[in-house]
Amino acid sequence: MAKLARALPVIQPGGSPSPPLVFNKVAIVGLGLIGGSIALAVRQHWPTGLVIGVDRKEVLERAMVLHAIDVAADDLVVMAEADLVILAAPVEQNIKLLAQLDRYVTTAAVVTDVGSTKRTTISAARQLPDRLTFVGGHPLGGAPRGGIEHARPDLFEGRPWLFTPTTDEPAGILERLSSFVRTLGAEPHVVDPTEHDELLALVSHLPQLATSALMHVVGTTAGEEGLALTGRGLFDATRLASSPADIWRDICCSNADAIGGALDEFIGELQRIRGELKSGAEIDRLFDSAGTWRARLAALRTARQVD
Amino acid sequence: MAKLARALPVIQPGGSPSPPLVFNKVAIVGLGLIGGSIALAVRQHWPTGLVIGVDRKEVLERAMVLHAIDVAADDLVVMAEADLVILAAPVEQNIKLLAQLDRYVTTAAVVTDVGSTKRTTISAARQLPDRLTFVGGHPLGGAPRGGIEHARPDLFEGRPWLFTPTTDEPAGILERLSSFVRTLGAEPHVVDPTEHDELLALVSHLPQLATSALMHVVGTTAGEEGLALTGRGLFDATRLASSPADIWRDICCSNADAIGGALDEFIGELQRIRGELKSGAEIDRLFDSAGTWRARLAALRTARQVD
Repeated sequence: MAKLARALPVIQPGGSPSPPLVFNKVAIVGLGLIGGSIALAVRQHWPTGLVIGVDRKEVLERAMVLHAIDVAADDLVVMAEADLVILAAPVEQNIKLLAQLDRYVTTAAVVTDVGSTKRTTISAARQLPDRLTFVGGHPLGGAPRGGIEHARPDLFEGRPWLFTPTTDEPAGILERLSSFVRTLGAEPHVVDPTEHDELLALVSHLPQLATSALMHVVGTTAGEEGLALTGRGLFDATRLASSPADIWRDICCSNADAIGGALDEFIGELQRIRGELKSGAEIDRLFDSAGTWRARLAALRTARQVD
Repeated sequence: MAKLARALPVIQPGGSPSPPLVFNKVAIVGLGLIGGSIALAVRQHWPTGLVIGVDRKEVLERAMVLHAIDVAADDLVVMAEADLVILAAPVEQNIKLLAQLDRYVTTAAVVTDVGSTKRTTISAARQLPDRLTFVGGHPLGGAPRGGIEHARPDLFEGRPWLFTPTTDEPAGILERLSSFVRTLGAEPHVVDPTEHDELLALVSHLPQLATSALMHVVGTTAGEEGLALTGRGLFDATRLASSPADIWRDICCSNADAIGGALDEFIGELQRIRGELKSGAEIDRLFDSAGTWRARLAALRTARQVD
């Protein structure tokens, strides 16, 4: 299959003028929650721009119904003239896609990704030809449920979008990408790739693995009968346990060293608590620290006005 | 201070007849989220019954303003004629209160508690005189925030309320308590005290400690600057981290053996994952199991129609 169809143009509500086009033809490979939300946001903010979507046929059909994309294909050929290519598949697929871009993208395009780990993708991008400039990206716009059916144009509103440039990019590329994501409502930040992966191991990958391990241990040990006798606490603590394996398989593999370090710190703290369960002073210290950090986290979110 | 005042009677909305009184005078010691919600629920369902509240003066004042109690005192003397005494303070305080009931309660009262661990409280209750019958209780009606200001009469609606009777109670007591909590909207369940403590170590105490340890490790290592670069995942995963230390100090101390076992299982699973981060098959297995159990937990809650 090549092109599916061209969807109806989106009428900008309220008549406010569109911001200047940063990229004319945006190709997005992978229309899940993140890729789909970028597509919807680009269509909303730049109704005259072209959004090219690449994914499996059934996903493309849903994207067309949602008016998320202008051009749909399950073949990379459709990206030939893109001036921005966004890789929004799981990390290992993004790496495989990078190896194919030279063949399919004929223009001097900017290439970015939205993966949760950066070092292996940046390393793979070194093979790109000179006309294609890669800058790693990572929008922190998760939602409880994935897939294009949960995509929303305001997903990035008020949220950080991390970029991990190296020293190789031509001048001005980072500024264009920053301008692009700022129009999508995000706050661009520049982070060193290694620092990115270490920080994310701690603030994202560790919480995910801890939650999955918790749900697995509690479920298999307590069983359905035990789960029936639970309150709100377990339910609240395990929201992340329904995260999809395919994304996380690649994150764990591509960031194993940093995640291993974060897990060691967490395991060390659990072992310390395990030895101090009868010490009121130690439990007080733990709850005081956890409560203080949680309050700061809540205050940061309130300041950013996200839900 | 003895009596504060007698609050205005609550008018039953809609004129539906009240269920028969199971207990005429209900004394509640500790008017936090749970004690306060029991008070509000009793006043709503049995407007002719008397609710006696015991706590610090400032809590009693808030309880009176909320019309949660009829009689308020910061002194146990006020419970002299209660026919149901509910201990709703943290576990160690409940144990100290048990030692004082003989002196203050002059009637043949039923005594229960709402603590999250049962064995140490049941053991302390063995010293009660014959006229006072103790049955351990545990409503699973947590909410994200504690204190009487968050109390609500429907807190127990559709939620399990566990009772841990021993073989010593006179006939009929458990039935009266079950009838009482059923009117409050809860589902009474009978559980062996040791099984209760082991189950709760797994489904409640472990999730709490894991969340507190996670927030502590992430906060102290990433700092405020790192927390600013986080998405929704960490925020969702750490809701429980603001739980109050005073309640949890007593839970950890009184259930240290069972919590230690649950922590060992969790630490073991984390160590296993740590060694398999590059194995896609193992990450798939973990996420499949966690996702399946999480879906079952969600289905159980949907069936129970709680939020």
